Amino acid sequence: MDSRLRRPADPDPTKVPTMNALRVPQSSDLAGALTAVRERAPLVQNITNYVVMNTTANALLAVGASPAMIHAPEEAGDFARISNALVINIGTLSAPWVRGMRAAVSAAADRSVPWVLDPVGAGATPYRTDVARELAALRPSVIRANASEVAVLAGQLVGGRGVDSLHSPEAVSDAAATLARTCECVVAMTGEVDYITDGVRTLRIRNGDVLLSRVTGMGCTASALVGAFLGAGHDSFLAAAAAVALLAVAGEDAAAAASGPGSLQVQVLDTLYHMTPAAMAARLRLE
Amino acid sequence: MDSRLRRPADPDPTKVPTMNALRVPQSSDLAGALTAVRERAPLVQNITNYVVMNTTANALLAVGASPAMIHAPEEAGDFARISNALVINIGTLSAPWVRGMRAAVSAAADRSVPWVLDPVGAGATPYRTDVARELAALRPSVIRANASEVAVLAGQLVGGRGVDSLHSPEAVSDAAATLARTCECVVAMTGEVDYITDGVRTLRIRNGDVLLSRVTGMGCTASALVGAFLGAGHDSFLAAAAAVALLAVAGEDAAAAASGPGSLQVQVLDTLYHMTPAAMAARLRLE
Amino acid sequence: MDSRLRRPADPDPTKVPTMNALRVPQSSDLAGALTAVRERAPLVQNITNYVVMNTTANALLAVGASPAMIHAPEEAGDFARISNALVINIGTLSAPWVRGMRAAVSAAADRSVPWVLDPVGAGATPYRTDVARELAALRPSVIRANASEVAVLAGQLVGGRGVDSLHSPEAVSDAAATLARTCECVVAMTGEVDYITDGVRTLRIRNGDVLLSRVTGMGCTASALVGAFLGAGHDSFLAAAAAVALLAVAGEDAAAAASGPGSLQVQVLDTLYHMTPAAMAARLRLE
Repeated sequence: MDSRLRRPADPDPTKVPTMNALRVPQSSDLAGALTAVRERAPLVQNITNYVVMNTTANALLAVGASPAMIHAPEEAGDFARISNALVINIGTLSAPWVRGMRAAVSAAADRSVPWVLDPVGAGATPYRTDVARELAALRPSVIRANASEVAVLAGQLVGGRGVDSLHSPEAVSDAAATLARTCECVVAMTGEVDYITDGVRTLRIRNGDVLLSRVTGMGCTASALVGAFLGAGHDSFLAAAAAVALLAVAGEDAAAAASGPGSLQVQVLDTLYHMTPAAMAARLRLE
Repeated sequence: MDSRLRRPADPDPTKVPTMNALRVPQSSDLAGALTAVRERAPLVQNITNYVVMNTTANALLAVGASPAMIHAPEEAGDFARISNALVINIGTLSAPWVRGMRAAVSAAADRSVPWVLDPVGAGATPYRTDVARELAALRPSVIRANASEVAVLAGQLVGGRGVDSLHSPEAVSDAAATLARTCECVVAMTGEVDYITDGVRTLRIRNGDVLLSRVTGMGCTASALVGAFLGAGHDSFLAAAAAVALLAVAGEDAAAAASGPGSLQVQVLDTLYHMTPAAMAARLRLE
Repeated sequence: MDSRLRRPADPDPTKVPTMNALRVPQSSDLAGALTAVRERAPLVQNITNYVVMNTTANALLAVGASPAMIHAPEEAGDFARISNALVINIGTLSAPWVRGMRAAVSAAADRSVPWVLDPVGAGATPYRTDVARELAALRPSVIRANASEVAVLAGQLVGGRGVDSLHSPEAVSDAAATLARTCECVVAMTGEVDYITDGVRTLRIRNGDVLLSRVTGMGCTASALVGAFLGAGHDSFLAAAAAVALLAVAGEDAAAAASGPGSLQVQVLDTLYHMTPAAMAARLRLE
């Protein structure tokens, strides 16, 4: 628990591998980004949903970050000021929690603390869509979402059955790029293929396993890991890509070792804990 | 995550195996009911307790359903309207959550969405008993509870030590039938022996393992699975019986493979995922 | 679930092994304390954080206690009156939960129900520190905390980076003794070495494994287990020492069997379930 209370020193910019803003990072860049997470143990504040609090805290610990789940309006802003990154996930949102999210995002903006938005279920109800749109407009560093949520936030669709209305992979990819340009952020859209885009560059990650869709919270875990990579000092594109890639590769290994979704959830944590940059680089399938 | 947002088409009534209302379903009926869950992937809204959110979401995914945990009064009703079934569990109730439960139940009634009530701890405190009684009066399709909770709702007892006051299996069974007739619903009373009753018919299921009582949330998981079977289009009696039977058989297999309650929780999910109607039918001990 | 609703008869004082108030308990005392937990199955009310609700409920079940997670102000006090022990953990505190904590603590005091305080993150934000201090002043039987939290409550430090300011193991130990004398309670300060102190006696426990720090909620689990031992009728010093020792020994065994933090979490529950007083006594390293 001690680690929750210590924020590492701000990253030394001379040691942070930053990407050329116009270059698409390669496998070695994504894999190498893990090293800084392990070395810096970033303090990552999560205002997330009840379903995944335990599993995302454990995923963050497994990669070497320090998670803190702090949501009350009375303290969410104070804590965001001392965090290295902030994760906002609306999975089980309610009015008091949204107040905490606003306080944390506002404080993060004051202190240039990077943050991730996971707009879970945007489009499913008007309330959820409204909150997701409000938060997306507050300049997250990264939006991590599925195709349906991206489509809703990109304004192409109304209602919660968006993904069925996107007739081609190209349309899906275009929605992500549109959202990235609109929100001036990086969009990490996960699914059978994962897309990372800032509206100009797009990276596709073709790792993962279908069994991951039978465990709750894998998308939420990806969002939490984006927080870990942001908190380690990486730029938004590299942080989003490295986090999504790490979970996809770990998920493949975990699925190979698991005998069902219960053991998969366990294996994912073990695999994240043992993953090395070399093993990750060797396995990545990027486009 | 995508699956959360899509409600399958309403079941085709010509394909839903419905039971004769006066016949007690057999092992083959219970086992066969699993097929429709897998094929239809019903969207099941859960307003449930914090302790079991992760495990019940994973159990629903393991059987092929699509869980959504949505409780805020601002959206609980909207989401119930697009769900195939609703699960209400008062394990960690509080006033704002009860408002969400009322909104969801009211919307479910409007749209004939079937719903399950799990009156966790009814009898333990006056507040909890009052809320359980209020919800039980709102015409749930199924009440899934233990003997103590059934006794409290059936009005035989005051206070939280009900099960000790029920002196015989016959008294326990009578309380369940009384509750079913009073609420015009099916009661699934789980324990060493599980009873499914609509006040006229009673089915006893003699599967399960004592180690299941050393893992939190197995009763709550049974309730969630009732939601999956209701959402797949089965009638209340068959849905309740099939769900309870599925978990009892899976629990037996899981206990045989587990080395303690920690691994049991993992094994239950793996076993649910792999269970087939044939394996289930071969193992059921009904009376 | 039934077990949640039954409070065992008050312990027979002639059968409760009480320690001489001036003697430091030995390995055999700590290990022997487990027997009463298994025999009495104490009802332990937990008002705890969302992250650990499932894992601490399962840890309590694994050692033979009956957990109940009940926090709403409308019923928290009523339930505390019928509980054998109460656990208050502020990990994900918010104003409504703090109201429930106050109601439960007040009722526990009325009925002499022993209680444990876990002041998670005291020092991290002013709100959290204020709530932790308020609760610590309400006469908990035991405070279970890490060194940083102890230092904040002992008043030596301001802000959340306390542990770094404690320059020596002696300073850490002194802070715990000061807190115990100030609050007239037992302090169980866990870390690389665990300290149990009432301000006069101090016991050091040198068990555990570093991998435990990569799983969320191990400290919270220790606090929950203190509740189980208090609820079984043990005095505060023995209860705190036995609970911390049990988890440390179980954690060692679990770490030896685990292949990472995911499987460690599972193994801890299995190991707690199978632990015997003899195995525990043989493994303890006390000072």
